[in-house]
Amino acid sequence: MAALETVLDKIDANLDSALERLFQLIAIESVSTDPAFAGECKAAAEWLANELTGLGFEASVRPTAGHPMVVAHAKAARPDVPHLLFYGHYDVQPADPLELWQTPPFEARIVEAETGRQIVGRGVADDKGQLMTFIEAVRAFRETGDLPCMITILLEGEEETGSPSLPAFLAANKKELEADLALVCDTGMWDRATPAITTMLRGLVLEEAIIRGADRDLHSGIFGSAAINPIHVLARIIAGLHDQDGRVTLPGFYDGVTELPEEVAEQWRALKFNEAEFLGAVGLSIPAGEQGRSVLEMVWSRPTCDVNGVLGGYTGKGSKTVLPAEASAKFSFRLVGAQDPAKIAESFRAYVRKSLPEDCKVEFISHGGSKALQLPFSSEALSRASRALQAEWGADPVLAGCGGSIPIVGNFKSDLNMDTLMIGFGLEDDRMHSPNEKYELTSFHKGARSWARVLSAIAQ
Amino acid sequence: MAALETVLDKIDANLDSALERLFQLIAIESVSTDPAFAGECKAAAEWLANELTGLGFEASVRPTAGHPMVVAHAKAARPDVPHLLFYGHYDVQPADPLELWQTPPFEARIVEAETGRQIVGRGVADDKGQLMTFIEAVRAFRETGDLPCMITILLEGEEETGSPSLPAFLAANKKELEADLALVCDTGMWDRATPAITTMLRGLVLEEAIIRGADRDLHSGIFGSAAINPIHVLARIIAGLHDQDGRVTLPGFYDGVTELPEEVAEQWRALKFNEAEFLGAVGLSIPAGEQGRSVLEMVWSRPTCDVNGVLGGYTGKGSKTVLPAEASAKFSFRLVGAQDPAKIAESFRAYVRKSLPEDCKVEFISHGGSKALQLPFSSEALSRASRALQAEWGADPVLAGCGGSIPIVGNFKSDLNMDTLMIGFGLEDDRMHSPNEKYELTSFHKGARSWARVLSAIAQ
Repeated sequence: MAALETVLDKIDANLDSALERLFQLIAIESVSTDPAFAGECKAAAEWLANELTGLGFEASVRPTAGHPMVVAHAKAARPDVPHLLFYGHYDVQPADPLELWQTPPFEARIVEAETGRQIVGRGVADDKGQLMTFIEAVRAFRETGDLPCMITILLEGEEETGSPSLPAFLAANKKELEADLALVCDTGMWDRATPAITTMLRGLVLEEAIIRGADRDLHSGIFGSAAINPIHVLARIIAGLHDQDGRVTLPGFYDGVTELPEEVAEQWRALKFNEAEFLGAVGLSIPAGEQGRSVLEMVWSRPTCDVNGVLGGYTGKGSKTVLPAEASAKFSFRLVGAQDPAKIAESFRAYVRKSLPEDCKVEFISHGGSKALQLPFSSEALSRASRALQAEWGADPVLAGCGGSIPIVGNFKSDLNMDTLMIGFGLEDDRMHSPNEKYELTSFHKGARSWARVLSAIAQ
Repeated sequence: MAALETVLDKIDANLDSALERLFQLIAIESVSTDPAFAGECKAAAEWLANELTGLGFEASVRPTAGHPMVVAHAKAARPDVPHLLFYGHYDVQPADPLELWQTPPFEARIVEAETGRQIVGRGVADDKGQLMTFIEAVRAFRETGDLPCMITILLEGEEETGSPSLPAFLAANKKELEADLALVCDTGMWDRATPAITTMLRGLVLEEAIIRGADRDLHSGIFGSAAINPIHVLARIIAGLHDQDGRVTLPGFYDGVTELPEEVAEQWRALKFNEAEFLGAVGLSIPAGEQGRSVLEMVWSRPTCDVNGVLGGYTGKGSKTVLPAEASAKFSFRLVGAQDPAKIAESFRAYVRKSLPEDCKVEFISHGGSKALQLPFSSEALSRASRALQAEWGADPVLAGCGGSIPIVGNFKSDLNMDTLMIGFGLEDDRMHSPNEKYELTSFHKGARSWARVLSAIAQ
């Protein structure tokens, strides 16, 4: 295996041809949501399998009920090195509205911007440019010697449509896909100068409650106040879910929620996250959540309860004096740490039942639940990856949380029992899913160099 | 003027021919909501005008933007008697679904039922049979002598479609329609044996509030708990509108609300209204409103606050983890006594504004307001009509409230400055607006006799 410096030099030397390869991949219009592009999705999978075969991988395009998977395996020089599973996705969002693109979305190009050179094209940040950073790192190892780790690559073509074929594929190919650690390149940097490793993904409990009173809609003139109004009942239930300090009132809700390790808390404080700017961008000014918590904590490391939808009675134009027979709401709970989705759902349902007047009934619908994922802060792989990123960027990576969910990471944990290192080089202004999507040339180039360093560090 | 007994005998003697006349009127398919029946509406108006002309009225069919009005005037024997304005409507609901009628809806017939003979046909209870009770009473006076009061009759053809032409017609014909007292025959009896005079109509304030937070819908994973959730804000506002005893919390809400006179309260208690049956009919068992109040009070004489509709966020199938930019609700307040609609609306808006977090805005939409109407319990006309009904039915009439609204009565008060006596002979099981609509033969016959007694009593 060549020295790391040799590999990094090779990445530098390859940059122009790497861009050519990326542009080729972007030119394949692999829009997964539109059946008209199924052929293009298959073509993208084949292009990638071919690319990986050229790098000495045993690569294949594997059919699914939807768009195909690409699976590729390569051995390392030594047998005693870790086995890594890299995940990315080759499908992209539709390019509409086309008229807002300054140049054709599938003809990638380099643009000079104030902050440096940018690659513009559909899917360049999400996720073609990101996944190619890893493949270019692998190429540099291959062109200078052997791979430092045993590597399996899994590329899917349905991420933008919710990965419908993925769970079954993982289940059917468990043995083939199991590894020591998963790597996912579908997240972002903290800012232009600061890399990030996403170590926490919040879990989710989704519950719907339908409150029913009378067995039909009633005239509020005839029955008003004598007959129970399910909207009033629902409103009291929603209002009772938080106390005055913004904490969730469900019994046992905070069981399993732990405080951040002091060094992570200190790192987050040192980021001097601009709360005013974050909220100001959407027209707000005051953090609404738990008092005494920073906004970063609120969205990264604290559990939440939100009503995502509410419906009852007459909602058209004007007025109708109806007392509705039912009112419903959709609730979501973001979980952290060791919070148990089943217990949270049960505590919620018990609270609702307890809040119901005798004349009301409730129907619950579960829309699923998942535990929070937490890469242990003490993980050796995390320390090594952190040092590797520090060496490339000259700044410690932020150990970030992610308020949303990245389902594949949950599948890796639950189905393949693997932790995941989420490292990506996207920036907040990359216009993912929007016209003129871009990826910084720096992200692409230093991203590949970062992966070379990470692979090298993990192998040692 | 003939003795009352002579008039009543004439009504009895006329019963068969009265039924024939009613059947003729029912045969005219005066469905106001369907333009295809416009000619039939006009025919019904002409039939009525002709009928009234035959009874010595100066009657005319008066065009409006919609279906015509019938206006008819007749003088009394003496000039110093009261001038009464009688209101009814000749239009009917559509007969659909036709297949559920046991016989053709516009071919009225007599049916023998367990509780006595019934007249079946579209519009017989609402309102053709009812308005004909008055006209048959007038006929009996005419056929035995003079009218006891000066009488103006106003019959409209758009009641079932919300009386769109009525306000302008009243305004344009104010002088012609002003009288000492209005009589409306479009309400019901307390039960088969007990007549009723509706003396209280609740007022109404309709307000819509739209609560806005962020300037766009947000991803609850990224912004959840940090960004204010308008559904939570709205729920707290709704939940705060009532206290634990079911009373409305708005400052000044109960200003102008008075207790019932003890004799009316006593009469209502004596009715032994079956609350369990009233609520049980719609699947409920427990009165939900103000503690310490009977259900009759709740729906007849107490003010209420109800949310008639609520909407926010994602309300389709499944789940979507959105933090909505806005949530809205439609509120209605039923008013009694001297409650001031403008003050109630202002108190509501002030409460909402005070409940808003700094980061939220609210938009209000008014959907109108009207004061409650209360025929003074001490009114001389009310006492006389009560005694007249008692004499006919052998039972004191219930001085009833009406939870809903009868707009014409508000117009008579606000535009023509007239109180209204609402006396009708419908029963709860008349299937108004439904197939096989019926009107008891007793209602029709004793209804006409009742009007004869009421006119006679008021004239004295």
